[in-house]
Amino acid sequence: MTVEQNKIPQATAKRLPLYYRFLNNLNQQGKKRVSSKELSDAVKVDSATIRRDFSYFGALGKKGYGYHVEYLLGFFRKTLDQDELTDVALIGTGNLGTAFLHYNFLKNNNTRIIMAFDADPDKVDSDIGGVPVYHIDELEERMGDVEVAILTVPSDEAQTITNQLVDYGISGILNFTPARITVPSVIRVHHIDLAVELQSLVYFLKHYPLKA
Amino acid sequence: MTVEQNKIPQATAKRLPLYYRFLNNLNQQGKKRVSSKELSDAVKVDSATIRRDFSYFGALGKKGYGYHVEYLLGFFRKTLDQDELTDVALIGTGNLGTAFLHYNFLKNNNTRIIMAFDADPDKVDSDIGGVPVYHIDELEERMGDVEVAILTVPSDEAQTITNQLVDYGISGILNFTPARITVPSVIRVHHIDLAVELQSLVYFLKHYPLKA
Repeated sequence: MTVEQNKIPQATAKRLPLYYRFLNNLNQQGKKRVSSKELSDAVKVDSATIRRDFSYFGALGKKGYGYHVEYLLGFFRKTLDQDELTDVALIGTGNLGTAFLHYNFLKNNNTRIIMAFDADPDKVDSDIGGVPVYHIDELEERMGDVEVAILTVPSDEAQTITNQLVDYGISGILNFTPARITVPSVIRVHHIDLAVELQSLVYFLKHYPLKA
Repeated sequence: MTVEQNKIPQATAKRLPLYYRFLNNLNQQGKKRVSSKELSDAVKVDSATIRRDFSYFGALGKKGYGYHVEYLLGFFRKTLDQDELTDVALIGTGNLGTAFLHYNFLKNNNTRIIMAFDADPDKVDSDIGGVPVYHIDELEERMGDVEVAILTVPSDEAQTITNQLVDYGISGILNFTPARITVPSVIRVHHIDLAVELQSLVYFLKHYPLKA
């Protein structure tokens, strides 16, 4: 996989949604400024990293004053394209998929799950968390311009469904199945494996104990 | 958060469960060796990174031969303590929690969810995916030696439940709620926020398009 010349480091980019979420809350509480220390405590990223991250956007902080919440928020909003909505399809409405569908409307962000797919006749043509569920066989006709999919199907169906998504023009897949899926190199896959996340936590607990 | 002097870099450590999973599959299929190219294709990590990761464990690979699957597996198994089982409690048996409980037994790894907690009378004293569900009020008496918890409660309860877990001696929390939780610095929290994962994917799609 080749990545285009980066504007900011990927590690920094990955933290932007986190910063945005917290600053949005602060703003809603009427807070005008925030120190890197406060930010650090809230988002659990050390303040040196925060200052370095922010420096990629120019010198936004002032010593003894901190960062201007509204300015920062406006900046991140533009950066994250919060105002430009991205439509997302969810494939597989088991427990995990259903959790996502309900989660959908608790959030105010730039992504919106507009449809879901399943093969279970009890679910097809129903509505979960306000999102219509279609039969998986309707994938081709329904996907239209949707370029992002959340994959929450059983493992053994992950690659077959992925191949279909690729055929119908998907750009990115958030893979929540334990399966590693294969896609052409132009398609971006982010993979979250619940078991691996748990194993990693346990591994870190055993080998990298934290100090008080 | 201060981290003890690392034996291997954290980024490498985070990939170990991934390597392990794939090598385990290879071994079950009777494969004796694997090249860093094959590994790279399967786990979606570039082969230079794989070779660097492996170099932290000593020179395990041979040019033109690749890596010896069984040896590697034995090595990782020891490293990941696959043989030593860690008991885990799951708090909150909504859709996400239920997905975890069912997921539990599809996996052969070193973690085992031994009990779940909920406040819903319809769920208390039931059994989900073979795991007994207790009332959340029984947390203190039931937790015993369990040091790891998966948090899948509603956001607005996350901090209250976390405080209880801390009081009862938890070491690590896998936080799957959108809430950022505050814990003493000796307790390790890994946070997976579904909305942030989705936003990150969309952000990368827009700003870091992949090349063929």
